[in-house]
Order: sequence, then C-alpha cells, then structure tokens
Amino acid sequence: MNQNPVITVYRGAMPESEHRVHLAAVTLDGALIASCGEPYRQTFARSSAKPLQAIPLVESGGADDYGLTDAELALVCASHNGEALHVGIAAGLLAKLGLDASALQCGAHDPYHKPSADALRAAGTLPTALHNNCSGKHAGMLALAKTIGAPTEGYLAVDHPVQQRMLAAVSDMSGVPAGEIQLGVDGCGVPVFGLPLAALALAFARLGTPEELVPARAAACRRIVEAIRAHPECLAGDDRFDTRLIRATRGRLVGKLGAEGVFAVTVPDAGLGLAVKVGDGSVRALYPAVTEALLQLGWLDQAEAQELAEFHRPVLRNWQGTAVGRIEPEFRLERP
Amino acid sequence: MNQNPVITVYRGAMPESEHRVHLAAVTLDGALIASCGEPYRQTFARSSAKPLQAIPLVESGGADDYGLTDAELALVCASHNGEALHVGIAAGLLAKLGLDASALQCGAHDPYHKPSADALRAAGTLPTALHNNCSGKHAGMLALAKTIGAPTEGYLAVDHPVQQRMLAAVSDMSGVPAGEIQLGVDGCGVPVFGLPLAALALAFARLGTPEELVPARAAACRRIVEAIRAHPECLAGDDRFDTRLIRATRGRLVGKLGAEGVFAVTVPDAGLGLAVKVGDGSVRALYPAVTEALLQLGWLDQAEAQELAEFHRPVLRNWQGTAVGRIEPEFRLERP
Repeated sequence: MNQNPVITVYRGAMPESEHRVHLAAVTLDGALIASCGEPYRQTFARSSAKPLQAIPLVESGGADDYGLTDAELALVCASHNGEALHVGIAAGLLAKLGLDASALQCGAHDPYHKPSADALRAAGTLPTALHNNCSGKHAGMLALAKTIGAPTEGYLAVDHPVQQRMLAAVSDMSGVPAGEIQLGVDGCGVPVFGLPLAALALAFARLGTPEELVPARAAACRRIVEAIRAHPECLAGDDRFDTRLIRATRGRLVGKLGAEGVFAVTVPDAGLGLAVKVGDGSVRALYPAVTEALLQLGWLDQAEAQELAEFHRPVLRNWQGTAVGRIEPEFRLERP
Repeated sequence: MNQNPVITVYRGAMPESEHRVHLAAVTLDGALIASCGEPYRQTFARSSAKPLQAIPLVESGGADDYGLTDAELALVCASHNGEALHVGIAAGLLAKLGLDASALQCGAHDPYHKPSADALRAAGTLPTALHNNCSGKHAGMLALAKTIGAPTEGYLAVDHPVQQRMLAAVSDMSGVPAGEIQLGVDGCGVPVFGLPLAALALAFARLGTPEELVPARAAACRRIVEAIRAHPECLAGDDRFDTRLIRATRGRLVGKLGAEGVFAVTVPDAGLGLAVKVGDGSVRALYPAVTEALLQLGWLDQAEAQELAEFHRPVLRNWQGTAVGRIEPEFRLERP
C-alpha cells in the first residue's frame, strides 16, 4: 500500500500542507483495477449517494406519477448552487406535490454560489430551505413518500419508509448488506451511509452500466444518468466541478461530490466506477485528486483535462489577488 | 516516529476524516522534550511569527517614538477578529503615525468575527484594510519604517528594510540562519518564514524567557509578552482560542495562531516553547491538537482544559443544530 498518496499545497517553492488520498476504481464485477491509499476504507458516501438515492423515486413510479422532468430529476441528485435556476426547479417540483418549502426539513443555508448569496444579502433576504444544496433531494424524498403512501412528516427519520428504501437501494447497488452499512446523520438531517470506498465505486459502475440489474432497476438507473447528462447545470452549477466534468467529457463521465472530500464517478456503458476520499475531508484537494486519477486511468484525455485545469492544479491567490502558491496532485495509482 | 498522530473527526460512531499532527516542544537550549509526527518538519510559521515580528518595532525604539499602548502592541501581534475594538485601535495607531487606512497594503476581507461581518453587510458597508486580521501587524510595519527612516511605500517587498529586520529577528530567535529560512508570500502580501517546527518552538521559548538574550532584545520580548497578557482580547477576540487560552491560564501560557494549521506557545519564565502544525492545514484539528498536547505536557491542568472544552473536543452540528459528530484528539506525545 502506498503510504504517501498525496496532494501537495505549495506556497512559493516550499510544500506548506499535504492531503492524503484514498481511491478505488472497479469494474462491474467489483474487481479493483486501480487504487491509492486504502481502497476499502470505510467511508461516508455523503451526497455522492444522491444519484443512488434517486433510484427508489423512479423505480416506485413516483417520477412518472408527478411527471418529473429531466431537470427536476437531475436536481433530485444534486448538491446544487442555490442559484435562481435551482431554487425555481425545487419550488416547481414541490408545487407538483401540492407542497411548498415549509415541507422541507433540510434547514437553510446561504447559496453555495457566491453571487447568488451576495444578491440575497443585497436584497436583505434570508436564504430558505429551497436554497439548501440538498433541496432537490428532499423534494424527491417527499415525492417518494407520497407515491408509496407514507407520511410526508418525519421523512428524515432512519425508520421512515423513505429512508429504509434509500438504505435498501444503496445496499443493493453497492453489494454491502444493509446491516453492515454504518449510519450517521448528514448536514441536512437525513441518514448517511458508511461503506467501503470500493463498494461505492461498484455502485457507481452499476448505476452507469445497469445491464445485469433487473429491468425496472436498470431502467431507473438509465433514466437518472440521462437526466443528469441532459442537465449538468442542475447537478451543481456552471462554476462547479461536477457540472464541468460532464461538459468537458460531453457526458462520457458523470460524477457526484460528497461532503468531507468524497467524489464518485461512473463511466456509463463502460462498466467502470471510481470513488475518491480525501482522508482529512478537504475539498481543496478533491478535484485535483479526481482529475489526476481520471487522467492516469485514461478515462479523461489531455484535452479534456486542460478544460478542467483550474480544478486539476489550482493556483492560490492572496487577498490582493497575487499568485502565492498552487495545489499539485503528486500520487501514482497502484495497479493490482 | 509515530506514523499516526491523529485528530479524528467522527460522524456518529464512525470515523469520517482524520488529520495528522506534527509537533515539537523544546526547552531554552533547543532540546526536544516531546514530539509528534515530524518535529523538524519545514513549516511556514505564517501569523504565528507575528509576536516575533513585533520585536524590531520595540527594539528600534519605534514603540516608544509613537507611544504605543499595550493594547496597540498586542494588536501588532494579532490575527484579530475585525471587531469595532480592533478596527478602532488599528485606526488610532495609524493616526499616531500621521497615516490612515490607505497606507495599509494588506487588502480587505470580511471580519473573522461573524456578527461584525453581518453588521457591516446589514449597514451596506464594505470591509476595509482595517478589518483585515493583519491590520495591526501592517500598522506596526509602517511604524517601524518611519522610525528607521525607511519609505512607508513598498514595505511589503522582501528587500525593504522593514522585511529584512523581520527576517533577522525570526532568524535570531529561532537560531536558523537567515539564508536557510525559506520565504513565501502571505495572504496579506508580506514575506512568510519557512523553518523547522522545533526552531519555531525555540523562538517562542526565548520570547517568553529572554534571559539569555542581549538586554535590548530581552526588554523587547518582555514588553511584547506583557502587552499580550494585558490585552488578550486584542490578540484575537473573545470567541477565539488564542484569547481564551491566555484567559484560562491567567497568562501562564501565551500562544499565537498561524494560517494553515499552525500554533506556537510560550510558557513565560519557564523556558519552554511549543509549535504545532496540522499536516493538511486544517484549523478544525488545530485547537484539539494544541489543547491535548498542552494537557499531556502538563502545561495545562484539567480545570483549565475544561474551560477550553469547546476547543478541545468540538461537537459538530448540522444546519438544524443537531449534534451529528465530534472531533477527538487521539495522539500520544513521544518523549525522547
């Protein structure tokens, strides 16, 4: 095992800080094809699980019952920017359910998108639950609750039928028995799923290439991936890596951020999945790690990496805007 | 060498992320009495050097020339909160020099103190260079420039006499030849000093116990430490670890934060110094690491640690305010 799979933060010519990277790339049968650090590290998937958590909504017929558009379904999978676009789609989805923002239990936070946050402040307006990056997921959970006849109140609780279906979907897709998935509570109040990094990678391989799954599940996976490909701006935002990765690869790769330095990628129709965790949870090291790993795997070509250069090797600037350092991915993938 | 000196971030019962800690505790002769990770790790001191950088101002007579109060001198050593108190002292110090905020080249950022930042926004007012956490240091640099007859323009440049005196002071105090100190540019534009962690600890041991230094230097060190002890609220702010550490120990310990997870502590009159670096630069792991190290060293007692409990083992809450995790220091100091 590589003891020093690092992302190095330089100030001038000297390394100032460093981040360890854990990583697993797998094929559809779960075989590890490349790794870094501890590929079986127990890891909370956090929001990287959202595309998997959308499966029960589609599979149960909820997406049809409420006539979900691709943009709405992509927002259900999103950690979105809280831009007017995202807020509007979330509100529209709730309206289809006969609900409004008061039904969301995710809490409120400033939009991730700084200009949108600044605009709210300038208008003297507080952010609402619709601005929460998870509002699409929560709206999707409410849609699932209504479709399966479960109460919309209390949908955050781990024993609520909605959360039990989320757990079952993550278990099925990852191959980890539900009883072995460790549970925690997310920033937005819902259960989060702790599982080996390689199992998260496998879940993403299956999501993009669901040919061995039962037809209803396979159809749900295909619909979710196509919705995200059709609306990458709904998955995150124009300035965000998730959105830009899909655009740079013209949809050949689809990936999703999770809090505390997690990212999962599927290569649709290629039977490949990748999961990355920055050991210390730092987001600043995550996109350099993911971009570099995709390059070394050959899943991303040099021209595509060039389109993602600001994420691959970020330049660090001080308050005056002077370049004072950079972030460099310095690991080599191990091949079994 | 301990390979796993960690601060662990738990979500529920499961470790989610972890931070490595590097640490050196030394006596006045530079002997290592305790360590963690890599005690000689090359480390940018960042703002932890500020109390050392105040030495040339006092030694040159500048602090007397301009009649600096203890509060003003403490602010020169500060990474302050940008509260009205701090902004007022910085403005007053500049006025003594016949200057105003336009002379500061540190750039502007929102006050660290969130209520102060919110108040500025509510008033529709942009932050100024006075709100920059480094405004006291920059005002002190301008005072030094005037006292030694150097231009106040261009005082950020590494070859400016002010920065050359800063470098010489850090070199003298740490015992690292100036030519071996690695230079970078700080967030506020001034040179920063890269040196072994144990050398930073030695500089702090000498700062608090300057008995072996020449009289003018020793007097400067004593005046700086006494100013900080008299005005801990000027060093950081009421909600900040630097301030709270001095208060909890009634001035028996004086420590200073630096960006990217650095902290240095002196035990005045005891001939002891400590320097800590979180390898990945994360501040969330820093105060748990410092508090735990001080307890294991016996420099802090249990009652004092109790006063610092929120820094020692922070509870993590989500957007709704629910406790979802905690940060735990889990390392053991090594004794040579």
